[in-house]
Amino acid sequence: MGLYEIHVFVCENERDETDTRGSCSLKGSREVRSKLKEEVKKLPIRNKVRINKAGCLGTCNQGVSMVIYPQGIWYGKVAVEDLPEIIERTLLKGEIIDRLLMSFMRKQTNIKIKEL
Amino acid sequence: MGLYEIHVFVCENERDETDTRGSCSLKGSREVRSKLKEEVKKLPIRNKVRINKAGCLGTCNQGVSMVIYPQGIWYGKVAVEDLPEIIERTLLKGEIIDRLLMSFMRKQTNIKIKEL
Repeated sequence: MGLYEIHVFVCENERDETDTRGSCSLKGSREVRSKLKEEVKKLPIRNKVRINKAGCLGTCNQGVSMVIYPQGIWYGKVAVEDLPEIIERTLLKGEIIDRLLMSFMRKQTNIKIKEL
Repeated sequence: MGLYEIHVFVCENERDETDTRGSCSLKGSREVRSKLKEEVKKLPIRNKVRINKAGCLGTCNQGVSMVIYPQGIWYGKVAVEDLPEIIERTLLKGEIIDRLLMSFMRKQTNIKIKEL
């Protein structure tokens, strides 16, 4: 329907180190996004997927925050080490990685990403 | 399913004025996003909608670019003057505004936003 079959937004909001809310940038979101973008470029589905920078997604306490649309999958506390699994399972196979789901999504099991 | 029923991303990518690709920032995207955010705060559905800043959405020639998820509605050449109609028709009534649809979406008529 849209321009991309999988549209990933990674929060890169910046806040001062003294801000108690924290921020995804201070938790390494730039590295997460740039590494994910780099790896996706190597995939056969690269033209169907876009890795986008986003401003604050409103889920600061669960950052690094990532949301995947149009499926509406919210992953939290994402680290560079999680990226191979996100690519292999979620982007390529359409599977949900339970341990990465944000708390408000944990009870939702009816999500199905379209297999590419 | 996700955190927001309507998640709007407005491209705020910046490029140098000499860059022939153009950029949404140079076309006024900051004003578009800040005005939209301000107006949405006055709506009864404000807690179900988020207006987010995004990096380059890849549709520079149709900027100011906006994509609305999970519905997957892509609007282009959005100006501040279009915002009352976007709020009234798309965000509140779930209608698609044909004249704002990006070119690749013009033939798609089976989009239905969930009425809030």
